[in-house]
Amino acid sequence: MADLAAPGATTISHSPPPLRALRWDDSRDGPALLLLDQTRLPAEEREIVCTGIPTLVELIRSLAVRGAPVLGLAGAYGVALAAARGFSVADAAEQLATARPTAVNLAVGVRRAFGAYRTHLAAKPGDEDGAAAAALAAARAMHREDAEASTAMAAHGLALLDRLVPGGAHRLLTHCNTGALVSGGEGTALAVALAAHRAGRLRRLWVDETRPLLQGARLTAYEAARAGMPYTLLADNAAGSLFAAGEVDAVLVGADRIAADGSTANKVGSYPLAVLARHHGVPFVVVAPSTTVDPHTPAGDAIEVEQRGSHEVAEFAGVAVAPPGATAYNPAFDVTPPELISAIVTEKGPVSPVDVSGMTQLCAMSLSSNETM
Amino acid sequence: MADLAAPGATTISHSPPPLRALRWDDSRDGPALLLLDQTRLPAEEREIVCTGIPTLVELIRSLAVRGAPVLGLAGAYGVALAAARGFSVADAAEQLATARPTAVNLAVGVRRAFGAYRTHLAAKPGDEDGAAAAALAAARAMHREDAEASTAMAAHGLALLDRLVPGGAHRLLTHCNTGALVSGGEGTALAVALAAHRAGRLRRLWVDETRPLLQGARLTAYEAARAGMPYTLLADNAAGSLFAAGEVDAVLVGADRIAADGSTANKVGSYPLAVLARHHGVPFVVVAPSTTVDPHTPAGDAIEVEQRGSHEVAEFAGVAVAPPGATAYNPAFDVTPPELISAIVTEKGPVSPVDVSGMTQLCAMSLSSNETM
Repeated sequence: MADLAAPGATTISHSPPPLRALRWDDSRDGPALLLLDQTRLPAEEREIVCTGIPTLVELIRSLAVRGAPVLGLAGAYGVALAAARGFSVADAAEQLATARPTAVNLAVGVRRAFGAYRTHLAAKPGDEDGAAAAALAAARAMHREDAEASTAMAAHGLALLDRLVPGGAHRLLTHCNTGALVSGGEGTALAVALAAHRAGRLRRLWVDETRPLLQGARLTAYEAARAGMPYTLLADNAAGSLFAAGEVDAVLVGADRIAADGSTANKVGSYPLAVLARHHGVPFVVVAPSTTVDPHTPAGDAIEVEQRGSHEVAEFAGVAVAPPGATAYNPAFDVTPPELISAIVTEKGPVSPVDVSGMTQLCAMSLSSNETM
Repeated sequence: MADLAAPGATTISHSPPPLRALRWDDSRDGPALLLLDQTRLPAEEREIVCTGIPTLVELIRSLAVRGAPVLGLAGAYGVALAAARGFSVADAAEQLATARPTAVNLAVGVRRAFGAYRTHLAAKPGDEDGAAAAALAAARAMHREDAEASTAMAAHGLALLDRLVPGGAHRLLTHCNTGALVSGGEGTALAVALAAHRAGRLRRLWVDETRPLLQGARLTAYEAARAGMPYTLLADNAAGSLFAAGEVDAVLVGADRIAADGSTANKVGSYPLAVLARHHGVPFVVVAPSTTVDPHTPAGDAIEVEQRGSHEVAEFAGVAVAPPGATAYNPAFDVTPPELISAIVTEKGPVSPVDVSGMTQLCAMSLSSNETM
């Protein structure tokens, strides 16, 4: 991560809206990808100027940029960056697609930009500039579609909540971070909560802190505060007490990968929420763009779950919170089976109930749109 | 907490065993209560020399000393300290009994030492020294009984696990801290795990880190490492994945208060584990001395749950992890209903199933032994 400390790593200050997880920048010495460093939030809004693929891969691994939809954009723009800067595009595509194993979006984004690049070269052999422009156009189109998908998910999600919670879904519980930081638009699950807020229906957004990396406390609380939403933070552990007290009308989470049967890999801690929600008769709703559905993953047990280092649990900001040598079981994600999911909301609409028929239909729609890429 | 920084706050280094949460000390200028400062573990084993009641109350509130059984001892020794140092014993009893609201043991310990003090004075009016000695003798008797109760709970718990898990309970999950640090002996739930370890039956102790104050990471992992137990730490959130993977044979937790119907208040996060355990058909076992049962609390909804400050969730070691002004829902405990508890193990044996008949019998035994105080 050499350029993190280099003079090129400019700090750019933002006025509040809009929050942009990443953006393409042509204004300096050669094209660059600017990434909002999510590891520094909420203390600081700092953009990293990324001009190399190894750096981008490292930023993806260290979670400076994270969240399934935006990982797709990072993959696509990464390919465009490699093409624009004359690096090996095939190497870049391979490194980026495998930077993290669970989110399918990363590989989808890479494939789309790389596909555009190769298609152009096949048509006009030797036209590297045109191919680079095609890759960038593909990334930009994906970015735009992602923003449109956010808007559509928010609308579908809000309508679905009305249907699932006849008394009104005024108190929403969410886990991890699923807002503008993970998306080209306003996000996935948090976009639905934001729509509820704008419609004057949100009384309380319960924000799970989301151990070990505190994406809820650091990022979702930050986005909620920025948007003026009425939110309350809680240790993930305390969600049980909220359910028992009848304080949760619905649970909204994102997804890192959805298998063909509807099994959903999402940030670790989502599955316990789904079990609690079922125990208390509360809807558990997954909100994710259709690109998160991987028709090639038949069921939950085929989803590879990334295991991360012990230090994320045993240390805090470099300070040990456990005895020396403590090892931790630290899966980044867990898998919720379809029978515990009340609905999966994509930009194409809700699948509810989450069953073979609904998922087959959604997969068919997703496949046909993927094939146009 | 003036004497924390005062010259009297001596640091005493320990050789590994035994770990003592608190002890009476007559060896210095006036009697004192020595408390192992649990907020400094695992970095440092440091004892605080406590000679005043306001200091002791503050140490209880700040969780320097914590855990239901040892809170009973702190209450009893606190009354003895007030008597030995000539403070108002009635005032001390009142301040100590209400220092924290949820654990019934604190009030039970205070009542026992204060009862011994008053009984002595009633028999020999004016004999303050004799009354102080009687209070101390009551605290010491309670301490001894607590150690004996640990031994008995460990034996009963081990036998019960054999019965509940025919294939062998080799992989135990525990939450919060329930070892020597909370007890006059080797603890409650952790004493059972330790007995399993000594019997060569423990393959893995899964240690929930226990947010927000990390008693699992800081204290249980520390005790497990000290005892050479094979343990692995996890974010509380990751327990769901362990259950789903079939990696948990039984859950063992302590209790801060058990109502007459068997409803159990314990560290927040216990209830979600009970729901997960039920969902996966895994036994959920509460281990606590019979003094934890409060026959005057009819059911779970009558248990007052302590709400603690937002800063415990929104900050870590004084560093903000959430945006400025973030407020948190931060109950210290949650309540698990009897129908989700496979067994309650006290020093008198297991209650299993946890039903009216079993609890009535246990309450009758507890009442009769409390009445002899």
